[in-house]
Amino acid sequence: MIAVARPARAGLFDQVAIVGVGLIGGSLGAALRQRQIAQHVIGIERDLAVAQQARSLQLIDEASTELQACAAADLVVLAVPVRQSQAVLAALVPHLRAQTLITDTGSTKQDVVRAARVALGPQVRQFIPGHPIAGREVNGPAAALPTLYEDKRVVLTPLAENRTQDVERIEALWQAAGARVSHMSAPEHDAVFGAVSHLPHLLAYALVAQIASAPDAAAKLAYAGGGFRDFTRIAASSPEMWRDIFLANQEMLLAELSTYEAMLASARAMLTSGDAAQIEHWLTQSAIVRQNWTPQ
Amino acid sequence: MIAVARPARAGLFDQVAIVGVGLIGGSLGAALRQRQIAQHVIGIERDLAVAQQARSLQLIDEASTELQACAAADLVVLAVPVRQSQAVLAALVPHLRAQTLITDTGSTKQDVVRAARVALGPQVRQFIPGHPIAGREVNGPAAALPTLYEDKRVVLTPLAENRTQDVERIEALWQAAGARVSHMSAPEHDAVFGAVSHLPHLLAYALVAQIASAPDAAAKLAYAGGGFRDFTRIAASSPEMWRDIFLANQEMLLAELSTYEAMLASARAMLTSGDAAQIEHWLTQSAIVRQNWTPQ
Repeated sequence: MIAVARPARAGLFDQVAIVGVGLIGGSLGAALRQRQIAQHVIGIERDLAVAQQARSLQLIDEASTELQACAAADLVVLAVPVRQSQAVLAALVPHLRAQTLITDTGSTKQDVVRAARVALGPQVRQFIPGHPIAGREVNGPAAALPTLYEDKRVVLTPLAENRTQDVERIEALWQAAGARVSHMSAPEHDAVFGAVSHLPHLLAYALVAQIASAPDAAAKLAYAGGGFRDFTRIAASSPEMWRDIFLANQEMLLAELSTYEAMLASARAMLTSGDAAQIEHWLTQSAIVRQNWTPQ
Repeated sequence: MIAVARPARAGLFDQVAIVGVGLIGGSLGAALRQRQIAQHVIGIERDLAVAQQARSLQLIDEASTELQACAAADLVVLAVPVRQSQAVLAALVPHLRAQTLITDTGSTKQDVVRAARVALGPQVRQFIPGHPIAGREVNGPAAALPTLYEDKRVVLTPLAENRTQDVERIEALWQAAGARVSHMSAPEHDAVFGAVSHLPHLLAYALVAQIASAPDAAAKLAYAGGGFRDFTRIAASSPEMWRDIFLANQEMLLAELSTYEAMLASARAMLTSGDAAQIEHWLTQSAIVRQNWTPQ
């Protein structure tokens, strides 16, 4: 990482405003405070009770329900379901100064970039799109952890309009929170995460739906073991957040789903034929890939 | 649990022979020895090196490559891939005494019962089919743990021919290893585990196959996170074991796969229509079921 110009006082930023202080925004707030990355962290929520909960959990220094609270911030972090991005950014415009940086935490990037261009116009140069690859199957401020981003990846998908030093400050922000930062184009990002994250989420929700709607659902859930537990962990994730991700990355997700349906059709043909050698070969190829995979 | 008649010496059994001392058989051996459930545990493997490894890991007292070593056992436990059951049981017949009990650990039950009837004839009354709901994504003696069955479920699918006191001794065996035992019919068992275990395994192997065969597989695997990790953990499981399970429970698995394909078709229709409320409703129903589920 190239050394980054720092403000005169300690901390990379003076005031950071985080819009949405649930799991993702709240965890960033907690990291910013504990690691003294920012002087002052303002958390903004439509619901005052949620903002106050984040304040009492010491995720933020100050709770607000008003985007106006962003007026003095040198960084605004959007941590809302992705389909709210355009509305929130548009409402934010009156409160942005020329030097305010903006970033986001959305799991999809092409739609967020589109939304930012519409909402911000030429000020889109101040917006550096980002996606921290971290989450939990529990939601809200109470689920936030100051360590959530430690050793996790953050993908930035910078715009042609972004200034290099601004991108570097957002890199430094996430690095200071313990994460490793890399860059991709927004379409590349959405293709990769459509396959390794969005599709598995859809598949896990679908398996739970199938078991829950079976006539013997109670017996099935009673005897489900460790395989079911891990396979479906992500089906406990926020329905609002995943509804938005599925719709935001609809095209890539449908393409991956088609590929998966073809893979299942091929598995069905193998099973039906009863060709043990072919089945074992297919399973072995996957097992070797998975055994050799480690989170990077 | 009704009190069970115990042999004069300490331990439920004098000699237990375990055929197959990998993860499942080796873990049972280790539990039998550590908890003094048996006086003497013999491990049998075709490959002497594997049997000796289990011996040096203290999973068993004695290593053998010969089924003849079962001749003095009062209990024989089959812990081999399910499609080997019939051949192993047939080869075991000359070494069975009238009082020898036999049980197994297979993940499918209708096929094992069929195999046992063919191989054992009237001696099938000595065979109490069982399935411990426990496993790891690592295999072989080195993966065995004496604690593998603690607080896990074991399902027995007793035969009409079994004597009650024999079924109770097998119950007592697993309870002594720390497990909770319940009964089902073999078809009921295969339907339940086809849905909550076999289908998720197939789906996880298929997702890894899809990602591994993509042109950008390296980038996808590099950015895959915690969701992918947990969803695909079971795709690192033994290909030989799962080939056998899929083929042994072929009919139930294909039926569950058809239901799943219909579920995906319905998810596709929702996504294509872009009906946010309907998608959120569907996701919420699964999320509630999964959030309220705990391993029993």
